[in-house]
Amino acid sequence: MSEELGITVKKKENFSEWYNEVVLKAQLADFSDIKGFMVVKPYGYAIWEKIQQYFDEKIKKIGHQNAYFPAVIPERFFEKEKEHVQGFSPEVFWITHAGKTELGERLALRPTSETIIYASYAQWIRSWRDLPLLINCWNSVFRAETKMTKLFLRTREFLWQEGHTAHATKEEADEEVMTILKIYRQVMEELLAIPVITGMKTESEKFAGALYTTTLEALMPDGRAIQMGTSHNLGQHFAKAFGIEFLDKNEKKQYAWQTSWGISTRLLGAITMMHGDDRGLILPPSLAPIQVVVVPIIFDKSKAEVLKKAKELSEKLSQNFSVHLDAREGYSAGFKFNEWELKGVPLRVEIGPKDIEKNQVVVYRRDTGKKESIAAKELSKKTKAALEDIQKNLYKKSLDFLNSNTHEASGFMEFKEIIEQKRGFIIANWCGAVKCEEEIKERTGATIRCLPFDPFGKSVDGKHFTSINKSGKCVFCGSDCETRVYFARAY
Amino acid sequence: MSEELGITVKKKENFSEWYNEVVLKAQLADFSDIKGFMVVKPYGYAIWEKIQQYFDEKIKKIGHQNAYFPAVIPERFFEKEKEHVQGFSPEVFWITHAGKTELGERLALRPTSETIIYASYAQWIRSWRDLPLLINCWNSVFRAETKMTKLFLRTREFLWQEGHTAHATKEEADEEVMTILKIYRQVMEELLAIPVITGMKTESEKFAGALYTTTLEALMPDGRAIQMGTSHNLGQHFAKAFGIEFLDKNEKKQYAWQTSWGISTRLLGAITMMHGDDRGLILPPSLAPIQVVVVPIIFDKSKAEVLKKAKELSEKLSQNFSVHLDAREGYSAGFKFNEWELKGVPLRVEIGPKDIEKNQVVVYRRDTGKKESIAAKELSKKTKAALEDIQKNLYKKSLDFLNSNTHEASGFMEFKEIIEQKRGFIIANWCGAVKCEEEIKERTGATIRCLPFDPFGKSVDGKHFTSINKSGKCVFCGSDCETRVYFARAY
Repeated sequence: MSEELGITVKKKENFSEWYNEVVLKAQLADFSDIKGFMVVKPYGYAIWEKIQQYFDEKIKKIGHQNAYFPAVIPERFFEKEKEHVQGFSPEVFWITHAGKTELGERLALRPTSETIIYASYAQWIRSWRDLPLLINCWNSVFRAETKMTKLFLRTREFLWQEGHTAHATKEEADEEVMTILKIYRQVMEELLAIPVITGMKTESEKFAGALYTTTLEALMPDGRAIQMGTSHNLGQHFAKAFGIEFLDKNEKKQYAWQTSWGISTRLLGAITMMHGDDRGLILPPSLAPIQVVVVPIIFDKSKAEVLKKAKELSEKLSQNFSVHLDAREGYSAGFKFNEWELKGVPLRVEIGPKDIEKNQVVVYRRDTGKKESIAAKELSKKTKAALEDIQKNLYKKSLDFLNSNTHEASGFMEFKEIIEQKRGFIIANWCGAVKCEEEIKERTGATIRCLPFDPFGKSVDGKHFTSINKSGKCVFCGSDCETRVYFARAY
Repeated sequence: MSEELGITVKKKENFSEWYNEVVLKAQLADFSDIKGFMVVKPYGYAIWEKIQQYFDEKIKKIGHQNAYFPAVIPERFFEKEKEHVQGFSPEVFWITHAGKTELGERLALRPTSETIIYASYAQWIRSWRDLPLLINCWNSVFRAETKMTKLFLRTREFLWQEGHTAHATKEEADEEVMTILKIYRQVMEELLAIPVITGMKTESEKFAGALYTTTLEALMPDGRAIQMGTSHNLGQHFAKAFGIEFLDKNEKKQYAWQTSWGISTRLLGAITMMHGDDRGLILPPSLAPIQVVVVPIIFDKSKAEVLKKAKELSEKLSQNFSVHLDAREGYSAGFKFNEWELKGVPLRVEIGPKDIEKNQVVVYRRDTGKKESIAAKELSKKTKAALEDIQKNLYKKSLDFLNSNTHEASGFMEFKEIIEQKRGFIIANWCGAVKCEEEIKERTGATIRCLPFDPFGKSVDGKHFTSINKSGKCVFCGSDCETRVYFARAY
């Protein structure tokens, strides 16, 4: 039975199948009976809640507020911003009937909420006193993906947050874009233990309707990049389409400058891919719904005593950590070990009759697989230290992976070789021509992930607003240019 | 300008118009540009978040977990439970296209999620070990209301939580229904300061597909009842329709027993109606996003000193309460007073140069309208006491209103007179015949709100599972019967 429950595929051998098994067997998510739609199961949802709490607190502290806007958008709104409608139309779900009545106008199920939200903003914003307007929404969006769907990474509905702000000047909107990008980076690096490259999207890769898009890109163990979040300056594009105007301090009418930004349950996919191993999920302690599982090692004659001690230890640990005591009967200790390893619980505490005799417990670290006997009275202190160390260790491993899988390419032959054989990120010069970008994509499957703001590892502070330039030759056409970009095949 | 911003209609004169003005002007919600759909604005959403936190914590403590299921339901699922489909079909929004492609099967936008969730439960539940399954979802639902819509009270989309549990026995499902009803009562009474009558719905008023429905009913100031929440025992109806079977401890196949239950943003409507007055909203302190607003009384020469003192006081109060310092320039103190009264902030602290001289502050209570000068050093203590008192006072006022507007009727003439002239709840005997229930509804507009569990004011403990019976004659047909019920016209 334990084989059946455990992961049957090796991460190195069949990454995609391994991923599906981990997501399903660790009970993060499940397929629904509707093609392309997923169920986020309680264990996965609890991780999402940790991300929500962390991000929500940070944005509220700097003046953002949550709100809710309708999930449906009248077709006429949707069509107001031309680039936007072109970008999203092909994958919109349309509502045509209510009961037996055909609707007078079709309603789009939101693929993103710019258009419905900005129709309200146009009514709410009158004066510079109404700005900045800083609103965030926690909801779900719908996109009729035609590509193969994959749990968390590409589904027809997913959970996310979408921030929508309006400002008096471009500078303030720029600042907001970068402030959010910085918080996103903290989410990725501090909470998810995944290092990211931040930078600017190219014109072809930017959000439909944006002035520019900034992005956070991570590298997954199969050498493909994943877009972890985006923060857009929308310029005045939507303000002009929807009539979001305000009187400035000089009583002059101006169009508002806007931003929008989002992260989604896709992050749960990245966590799974990045940290997991052949035994299943590995969760960073700061995200883990259960940080410590206590497993009593039960023999008939010492059962009562062991359970009592295990309960005591659990209660004590619960004061500072999120702890689960697995006192189920009818399951062997080995079965429980496998199950909690599969679910990625960072730390396991085992306690049996011999441990009680010696006033000790056994502590097992999920990330390193190491077991250690420690004095029972040291448990709280050691738990704290171990959890901190696991968090750091997971980040460091990911960063090492990123570093050792980021390559430079000076010509297209080299580029192709890297993308076929080593995969990972490629840093190269690019002349800025859409033609070169497209040719590279067509011939190698690699896209420009971003024009980086900063060498990775360093923080984004809102001032590094240019890419790292260096004279060189465009990796495709060979013409002289300054701009260096990150390429990769991506999810 | 202050007239324009303030409430222009008296609560007693035009309750419905007064309500609309308060919801809009206190910025709880707004109409969207789509007929019948609302926007929950940041101030309203912050109140909803308080309700979420309170309820979420309580249900998690007793083993419930959150999850997310698709917002769309294939037509074939929707049709599996016959009573359910009959109840909901007329108001379902249908998705028929994705991009330009017509879907092979229409998808319903969830009006409630029983059918999509139970399709998953049928796959997840195999053994008694998988039970109880206790899941809650925070999401929105969609109902194409044909009646006049009203912000919070009847809209085509609203936010709610829906709990869905599966159990091994009817008794466990009964217990769950009552456990949740008890928590709902705490939400209403402790948080919202609104007393409720709990009881059982009649067959005609129960949830479509349920075995029975329990409800919490409150009485609004216009004498109409409002259903504040419901908790259903679904019996094995859905389990049989969806094949939710498990092997019991004797290895015998059994159908699961299920419950579902929900409260929604409708509660924000009830809070508004119940506590508000001609100046606007009045929020119970335990729900108020801002519990205390500090307004500095500014004159040119003492401005710096007053602002400094106001900031000090705010920071000190912020340690224990949720405080907002309104230091905006260009608005008079009077304007600010009106605005925060409109938004229902329970307590206002005013501080001006004369107060500083005397080491005092002025404290204004929104519920009583009383102003009091107190020693500055007493502020924290007095704030705590005042907030507690406001919470109690609002509840007591509501309870007094409920008591004095609950009438007994022994015959139909008396019944009609009460419903036309006094309104409110009517307690009367009912023979149990659907015919009598329907005739009363048709002739008076009043429905049976519930068969009460308990005299109101007393707690529901899961054991009071019968209505309060008393021999008498059916208020409509005059036949002898035992069952006493609550009637009212309702929202």
